[in-house]
Amino acid sequence: MADVATATATKERKILVAVDDSEESMHALSWCLENVISNNSRDTLILIYAKPPRPVYTTLDGTGYLFSSDIMATMEKYSSDVADCILEKAKKLCREQLAHNYVKVETRVECGDARDVICEMVEKLSADMLVMGSHGYGLIKRAFLGSVSNHCARNVKCPVLIIKKPKSSGGR
Amino acid sequence: MADVATATATKERKILVAVDDSEESMHALSWCLENVISNNSRDTLILIYAKPPRPVYTTLDGTGYLFSSDIMATMEKYSSDVADCILEKAKKLCREQLAHNYVKVETRVECGDARDVICEMVEKLSADMLVMGSHGYGLIKRAFLGSVSNHCARNVKCPVLIIKKPKSSGGR
Repeated sequence: MADVATATATKERKILVAVDDSEESMHALSWCLENVISNNSRDTLILIYAKPPRPVYTTLDGTGYLFSSDIMATMEKYSSDVADCILEKAKKLCREQLAHNYVKVETRVECGDARDVICEMVEKLSADMLVMGSHGYGLIKRAFLGSVSNHCARNVKCPVLIIKKPKSSGGR
Repeated sequence: MADVATATATKERKILVAVDDSEESMHALSWCLENVISNNSRDTLILIYAKPPRPVYTTLDGTGYLFSSDIMATMEKYSSDVADCILEKAKKLCREQLAHNYVKVETRVECGDARDVICEMVEKLSADMLVMGSHGYGLIKRAFLGSVSNHCARNVKCPVLIIKKPKSSGGR
């Protein structure tokens, strides 16, 4: 689609890329690496993953929790493993696509609703740009809440780049 | 905020920038020139302006048009002048910000609702990226239809970069 740019940048840019377990988010990262990131610039790429908030289910009569602390700990561990796995995959993509190591790649994991986490991180880190896939959330949740990208595009102050995964391509 | 990139690109990219009479759209173009366009690449920048559709008002009993052909012609002339003026301003910005003339800058004017015009042009020209300001439309129309950028982000297939004008800066 486009090309690897090897650019000379004079100022530092913080580019946040929201990643999740979807192929679309990896495609968005890949497109960003090819089209936005300057190989020999002082860009900092920050990969953000929003870990789903810890579920707190109460029993119907409200007297107690459905899950024991053991189960909660197991779920927490699983959730952390998923986060590690996704960020590792994203960092691998960065290593493969960035010809040199001039671009700093950092990772952040925050717990919470992806919409809130991403918007808060953009603000907190004073990002110069937010990059994300078009979707996020499953179909049902999206029908009620709208897509994560739509929410972020409305609410963050910095430029937002929304990238869809082409249906025809098998993508990466 | 960020920096002028002087990049070497190997493939041709078509980058569409939607411009209108808002300061926000000129800010979006300016940001794109600074952060996305590669000065010595083979990028083609296509500036698109959607001219509002010709108003056709009929009288209440439906027997005739409220505006004479003279008035229509005057309005049409005015609308074309506005389009020329906006595109001239946009091209001037391109000349000022692009250090070299490697980047081709083209302009297109199409008549119709901005949402339809932009989506159709992205499709027709097989754009690699769409760049636009966050708003478009006045407040009232936006309340009913949503912003132009939101519509486009949902409907075009290529990556969409939505750029807001910072409130604090008076800048472009």
